[in-house]
Amino acid sequence: MRGDNLREKLAQIAEHWSPKTVATVNDYDVRLAKVHGEFVRHTHHDSDEFFLVLEGELKILMDGIDVVLRTGDIYVVPRGTPHKPVAAVETSIMLFEPREIVNTGDAGGELTAAREEI
Amino acid sequence: MRGDNLREKLAQIAEHWSPKTVATVNDYDVRLAKVHGEFVRHTHHDSDEFFLVLEGELKILMDGIDVVLRTGDIYVVPRGTPHKPVAAVETSIMLFEPREIVNTGDAGGELTAAREEI
Repeated sequence: MRGDNLREKLAQIAEHWSPKTVATVNDYDVRLAKVHGEFVRHTHHDSDEFFLVLEGELKILMDGIDVVLRTGDIYVVPRGTPHKPVAAVETSIMLFEPREIVNTGDAGGELTAAREEI
Repeated sequence: MRGDNLREKLAQIAEHWSPKTVATVNDYDVRLAKVHGEFVRHTHHDSDEFFLVLEGELKILMDGIDVVLRTGDIYVVPRGTPHKPVAAVETSIMLFEPREIVNTGDAGGELTAAREEI
């Protein structure tokens, strides 16, 4: 049999800033998202968050430091760090994080996405 | 600042079947490895193991099922599942698993690699 393909999974995602779970590793999720524009600044107080840019460019704006991630770049936002992701072009990302992590962290609001497996 | 680039990290890896940790997410590792040929059949009794093929082709031989992963494909070997990874060509993979996981699982032996961050 064949494994799941990331491009095929990404093709199932239309909405921006709404991560979908494509695999689970113990109590962690592997999630894919398409992002474009500005997301809400937020903090995950109890967990680090791993980002891999699959295609495009993501900026992660933090206090005193901005990180730019291009295709194939990775970065871990340390727990407790307020961060605001921004993508000037449509960008595809992979996330690793505990399954209970919510995309908007402590900010909440209308951009909050329910956990969904695809 | 720029994030770490997977290609640049892979360029630092010469040895086959010896995963290097490129990021940590809480108590989990994100690891890269170059693989070629046959690895030892082994089991991780206490953890799932996530595979992403970045380039090449990996077969994961298990009892009754063989999984083929090509570039961009993902698969999670469930905990407790004996598996033997095989790569007919040199292949680059990303792994996501708890930091205490050892590459050879319960098999041990000379292919066992110490945890190393790059």
